[in-house]
Amino acid sequence: MEAINAEEPIDKVFVQKGLRGELAKELESLMRKKGISFSYVPPEKLNRLSGSNHQGVVASISPISFHVLEELVEGVVATKDAPFFLLLDQLSDVRNFGAIIRSAECTGIDGIIIQKSGSAPVTSDTIKTSAGAVFNVPIAKVDHLKDAVFYLQASGIRVVAATEKTNKLLYDASLTGGLAIVMGAEDTGISPSIIKAADDAVKLPMLGEIGSLNVSVACGVLLYEAVRQRQKKTK
Amino acid sequence: MEAINAEEPIDKVFVQKGLRGELAKELESLMRKKGISFSYVPPEKLNRLSGSNHQGVVASISPISFHVLEELVEGVVATKDAPFFLLLDQLSDVRNFGAIIRSAECTGIDGIIIQKSGSAPVTSDTIKTSAGAVFNVPIAKVDHLKDAVFYLQASGIRVVAATEKTNKLLYDASLTGGLAIVMGAEDTGISPSIIKAADDAVKLPMLGEIGSLNVSVACGVLLYEAVRQRQKKTK
Repeated sequence: MEAINAEEPIDKVFVQKGLRGELAKELESLMRKKGISFSYVPPEKLNRLSGSNHQGVVASISPISFHVLEELVEGVVATKDAPFFLLLDQLSDVRNFGAIIRSAECTGIDGIIIQKSGSAPVTSDTIKTSAGAVFNVPIAKVDHLKDAVFYLQASGIRVVAATEKTNKLLYDASLTGGLAIVMGAEDTGISPSIIKAADDAVKLPMLGEIGSLNVSVACGVLLYEAVRQRQKKTK
Repeated sequence: MEAINAEEPIDKVFVQKGLRGELAKELESLMRKKGISFSYVPPEKLNRLSGSNHQGVVASISPISFHVLEELVEGVVATKDAPFFLLLDQLSDVRNFGAIIRSAECTGIDGIIIQKSGSAPVTSDTIKTSAGAVFNVPIAKVDHLKDAVFYLQASGIRVVAATEKTNKLLYDASLTGGLAIVMGAEDTGISPSIIKAADDAVKLPMLGEIGSLNVSVACGVLLYEAVRQRQKKTK
């Protein structure tokens, strides 16, 4: 509870199954209030995670600090003509997450926005597959990604969702100006309510029979199509 | 030796360290002649690989059959106006290999060409990360990738290498018509002699400090830029 109140970058909290008492109740209510992801696990898992004594609770602290959405967006909007953000809707694989952070760094993304619950954590594998880019690109964690979409739109940024559920190809969309691209989860894609909230939806042409790409590849293609359009406009 | 002579799709042969005798010599000479990748390993590795008795040699058979370069290229050139091939120069990670095969399937690649030695094998991880695309895209294995470059050029196909060692952006290159794209190894990129043999070399713009993308992401971006140009030309 002290770590939470000190605003430590907590990824997830593991609580021993059946933990009782006033303090346990207080902790759970605090975690719910702060939107911290937690789960109940058997004591063996806690023993393994802590490697030493524990009192029924182990928190995994992120190796990076997360940004506050409003501060991040305001700072970028104040200094840049064409802000460029990336939103990840419940992307769960740490290696995909790392590769995407790396692509974001290479395409000049001003910030990545993820949801507190359901997102891949920043682990040593994330850092490794990001080639260290995780330390260069600001990442903001929000309670609800849909609220971040609304906030970006209110800040004058167009939100474009990548989804197979559209007929519009990415090449036919305008990806210049203030822009936020949304990528979805590996299995289910972007939540329908976020596709609905977005200003536009685009897909990649699929010329084979498989019908979908690895999400980090799809994300790279979309970010680089935006780079192409943005560089062309500047010329 | 019987498996080799029967043209089984052998990925790699593991030979017990210190194996002596006429047969061992004969096998080694046959493997060299056929360009089959092999290495010397301790008996423990062979025990683990075979799971039963062995006589000092274990061969790993590929779950797919490989194509013969000349047959593959001739077949495609005879039926298609704008053949589209992908060459991988010593790409060694099976997950990258799988993701690239998947992207190749989604972008209508007519065939992938890899070198017999130094390339990632087709394992269950390759199949999984390819989402099954490995069964849809023909793959040819060649002794020397540079000879494949010459063969493609002689068949009227332009070969474009992806490398950081150029000033030309992919957006400024022509990627229409008969085309083969070459991607390099994760660590060292494309061999200098293959860059030199290629008709053109292109790079992706790098707007951050990391300076390079995951190879399967870079490959996806390049394949899709080719798709964009080719679809535009058709319109």
